[in-house]
Amino acid sequence: MQIPGHRLGDPELPRSLIDADAFATMKEVALFGDDDVAALRRSGPILEPQIEAVLDVWYGFVGSKPFLLAHFAHPTSGEPNGEYLARVRARFGQWIRDTAAARYDDDWLRWQFEIGRRHHRVGKNATDGATSTAIVPFRYLLPLAQPIVQTLRPFLAATGERVETVDAMQDAWRKSVLLQVTLWSSPYVAPDDF
Amino acid sequence: MQIPGHRLGDPELPRSLIDADAFATMKEVALFGDDDVAALRRSGPILEPQIEAVLDVWYGFVGSKPFLLAHFAHPTSGEPNGEYLARVRARFGQWIRDTAAARYDDDWLRWQFEIGRRHHRVGKNATDGATSTAIVPFRYLLPLAQPIVQTLRPFLAATGERVETVDAMQDAWRKSVLLQVTLWSSPYVAPDDF
Repeated sequence: MQIPGHRLGDPELPRSLIDADAFATMKEVALFGDDDVAALRRSGPILEPQIEAVLDVWYGFVGSKPFLLAHFAHPTSGEPNGEYLARVRARFGQWIRDTAAARYDDDWLRWQFEIGRRHHRVGKNATDGATSTAIVPFRYLLPLAQPIVQTLRPFLAATGERVETVDAMQDAWRKSVLLQVTLWSSPYVAPDDF
Repeated sequence: MQIPGHRLGDPELPRSLIDADAFATMKEVALFGDDDVAALRRSGPILEPQIEAVLDVWYGFVGSKPFLLAHFAHPTSGEPNGEYLARVRARFGQWIRDTAAARYDDDWLRWQFEIGRRHHRVGKNATDGATSTAIVPFRYLLPLAQPIVQTLRPFLAATGERVETVDAMQDAWRKSVLLQVTLWSSPYVAPDDF
């Protein structure tokens, strides 16, 4: 399935500022280990049939906050852009699969930086030809990790896994999202400071 | 008790880029509510007699990672700076108290931005007259939230509170740390992008 604008594996993406060794130190800091890789991969088949329901929750959250929905809306009329929302939603679903796959190779690192550019003024809107705000303000990027990981809980628990297993999957998601949001922040930060 | 370099409440600190209204939207995004304020305040008396033990764990973690300890060490000799470590440690202990106090007024916002400057090249080392690296790289700031909040768990549980109460305190700490790390990131990000 080809999802418009999904470029994981595209060799034409610019190189990542963070190479495999640097990412290894970030994983160490986040206490992210092989058990987290296993827990993420375990979550994949559990989440797969629920992806649209997860996206309903996440889109419902963004849609309920005008100061977030604004970044999917026309900058002057304030009218939400249905096509922009739909195209991002398809990629957001794929992001669930990609996060659960837990493959941290060079392609994945390049793709994280591309996701970051699409939140920042260097790249927002361009992929989808959207007319919207120039940038998602940095102040919201990291706090958004909380609703993403918190609302995932019932979906991770839906197949009746033991509480310890659900905890492990949610912890792994939390760490992965922290690491990803850090990489997505790159365009907001001077390279020498990153 | 006066802790050298602790400036919460100092009216001479520069104004925060984030005012009370902007911080309210950040709290909304992080799902941080009155229940979290209550849970943080409940954690204060539990953690107070354990602060040195918590700091032992956190310093043990930083000390075990050469690429983190480097930011408390001489930039060429690599020798850890005991005085710098000790002065930061005293403020780190007070940070536990301040986080548990959960008072988000203008003084607190100003102080968060000052904490951020002390990680970035605009202000690192100056408070303590230390000779060390110029900056804590952005890539580690957010991942550090994980060990901080994860290792707090047994300390929050030490007085035998119910699991639900410990969960609530840990969740509140997690959200508070996410919000604080966001504010600390400010010197790393252009004001228009923040």
